[in-house]
Amino acid sequence: MQVKDLAFTARQAAYDLSALSLEKRNEALKKIGQALQAHAAEIFAENRKDLADAERENLAAPLLKRLKFDEKKMQDVQAGIASLIALPDPLGHTLLARELNPGLNLYRISCPIGVIGVIFESRPDALVQIATLCLKSGNAALLKGGREALHTNRALFAAMEEGARGILPDGWAALLETRDDVNEMLSQDECIDLLIPRGSNAFVRYMMDHTRIPVMGHADGICHTYVDEYADIETAVKVTVDAKTQALAVCNATETLLVHERIAAAFLPPCAKALKEKGVEIRGDEKTQAIIDCLPAAEDDWATEYLDAILSIRIVNSLEEAIDHINHYGSHHTDAIITENESAKQRFMSRVDSAGVYVNCSTRFADGFRYGFGAEVGIATGKLHARGPVGLEGLCTYKYCLLGSGQTVGETTSYTHRDL
Amino acid sequence: MQVKDLAFTARQAAYDLSALSLEKRNEALKKIGQALQAHAAEIFAENRKDLADAERENLAAPLLKRLKFDEKKMQDVQAGIASLIALPDPLGHTLLARELNPGLNLYRISCPIGVIGVIFESRPDALVQIATLCLKSGNAALLKGGREALHTNRALFAAMEEGARGILPDGWAALLETRDDVNEMLSQDECIDLLIPRGSNAFVRYMMDHTRIPVMGHADGICHTYVDEYADIETAVKVTVDAKTQALAVCNATETLLVHERIAAAFLPPCAKALKEKGVEIRGDEKTQAIIDCLPAAEDDWATEYLDAILSIRIVNSLEEAIDHINHYGSHHTDAIITENESAKQRFMSRVDSAGVYVNCSTRFADGFRYGFGAEVGIATGKLHARGPVGLEGLCTYKYCLLGSGQTVGETTSYTHRDL
Repeated sequence: MQVKDLAFTARQAAYDLSALSLEKRNEALKKIGQALQAHAAEIFAENRKDLADAERENLAAPLLKRLKFDEKKMQDVQAGIASLIALPDPLGHTLLARELNPGLNLYRISCPIGVIGVIFESRPDALVQIATLCLKSGNAALLKGGREALHTNRALFAAMEEGARGILPDGWAALLETRDDVNEMLSQDECIDLLIPRGSNAFVRYMMDHTRIPVMGHADGICHTYVDEYADIETAVKVTVDAKTQALAVCNATETLLVHERIAAAFLPPCAKALKEKGVEIRGDEKTQAIIDCLPAAEDDWATEYLDAILSIRIVNSLEEAIDHINHYGSHHTDAIITENESAKQRFMSRVDSAGVYVNCSTRFADGFRYGFGAEVGIATGKLHARGPVGLEGLCTYKYCLLGSGQTVGETTSYTHRDL
Repeated sequence: MQVKDLAFTARQAAYDLSALSLEKRNEALKKIGQALQAHAAEIFAENRKDLADAERENLAAPLLKRLKFDEKKMQDVQAGIASLIALPDPLGHTLLARELNPGLNLYRISCPIGVIGVIFESRPDALVQIATLCLKSGNAALLKGGREALHTNRALFAAMEEGARGILPDGWAALLETRDDVNEMLSQDECIDLLIPRGSNAFVRYMMDHTRIPVMGHADGICHTYVDEYADIETAVKVTVDAKTQALAVCNATETLLVHERIAAAFLPPCAKALKEKGVEIRGDEKTQAIIDCLPAAEDDWATEYLDAILSIRIVNSLEEAIDHINHYGSHHTDAIITENESAKQRFMSRVDSAGVYVNCSTRFADGFRYGFGAEVGIATGKLHARGPVGLEGLCTYKYCLLGSGQTVGETTSYTHRDL
């Protein structure tokens, strides 16, 4: 089928899904889990094909690791489905209930968005995670995974379709496979309500430039840790090392360390020592180079997401300069201040224009699981609709239901606006 | 100043605004109201210039009426500002509070979006309404009004700037004047967070096609009233007449009436009579033409927002056909069912994909004032972020504030996820 037809079918399926009870959606999730387990051997075999192809193409080791789908990954997938089943229904919540006039009641009720297109990396478990998040929230999904995971994705998708057959409307999810499919998807604004690209900033911008469909951007993560003049040095070192090194190729790792000039001489030497023990390359501005042994940082460094064991360091004159740096070079993802000063905390939190503004803790906490959202479809760095880790709630919208008994605007001369 | 510079200044102002207390924002609103009153004579004089120009250009009477800014409109504007001051602060609300681990607490806090660009029609009172809504919600605003209101807008804007001087950061709002300004605005995605065009569907689509900035669409209103087979006929006639005729050139007026075939013979004659008494031209499909005297409806009629005393009527075989018609031809604005049947009500509300789904009342109720939102910046027909009438809440987003005492992800082995 062409993408146009898949999108149209998904649109129709979405109307059916929106009226499906929680019991039915959970039953489908359970059956999907069982079908995946039943087809485990085939899925692993298909994954070995992808891995063999990837090795022939000399894919880097971290990417090979993400591509692998084995018994351990299957266990994670099953645990994810079980926890999704246990989560409360995100649909049908009454977000507002108000009498407009006696007998005329307004309700704002949460409901699915409709049809969601997700483009994600070569991590086969992401396919299951995203499809099941969409299903739990009553959305139809068009799913485009990475080319390297093609065989695994086909096997996973076939098992999911088999599991859900007879419970969910046909076409509730579709698997897209090529870059051309993605391009076709961009013009289906009549049928697709939301696009969620997980990928590079350049890719997210490409999509925004070529579609009318709203794009929820999961783009770069240029996160900062700012060590204020009133920081506790031991805390600052510990948090900085975690924020940079606890994982490297992740969007919530700190890429730039900002340091107040009054604390730099005391803080930087022990921090640099701890970072170097973890194998981190430091690129500092001139003032930093005067205090510790490091490579020089260029202007480009402030705007680079290394996703690697590299940290840029800049010394600033004031909290304001740190905030300006973050708002200018950052990606509005997650930024932290280390300080014991209350007014600095407040000023940082109100003026830093990011989805996550942290005090005295690691930027690595920015994650749907750690926030207790159960699972996430991505981290939004835009400001509309959902911000930060996007879970079930971010995949829902609402409608206004107005229940009357023949009321007209002409006859309604006053409004009670009484919350029910 | 160029739009680029205005947008950059607004960006900086937005950071200051986001930290401004409710008292300061309300004080600015009060002073703006006083300044508008103090300059009333000049404003009226400038408006008379616009009116004279418009008359020379043979502007239609309803447009002339909207353009007029006199003592009565000034009173409305003053009442609007007073009610805005009385509304609670939309900022700083704790939307979620959760312990992730003892001593590590996550808060989701409402905050301004940042810089909002609004393009609106030639209604000078809209300038004040939108600017003050943005101010109350802590947003900076770039405002482009209709060409016909140029002199009035300049006078109103000068008074607002004078009133807010010394309280708000310079550049908290800027007035744009040309179509070129709007085009320049579209490329300022580094500085502008949200665009709200109030205008034709074609205009909204043009904007979506030419910018990366999220667009909150206030586009066509092709609203439907569906008279179900289980409708009370008296109610159906009364509500239909109100939905079509209570006001004509408004986005929430019903443009198409759908009628179940089993009730058509009983309902259509009295309804047509009542509509014709109000001067409404009826365009019906073949089945409708067989029951009442009317013009034939063409395919185009189903997709037309008349904004006039014209109603298209179509007879459907079932509730499902009505829902399909609405989802296909409608603009996802507001649609109503008239029925006494509970399952029809539920089915209509869950499957009609519109911001407003109404039971037994007029589509004309879709309005921020009637909903009790105090004021609205527009009605969103998209599904992301805000839907339906958009008031202060729709101009806000949130951030996640995570407050710790040195926590690292590496050392955090379990999560309590205890709501506070």
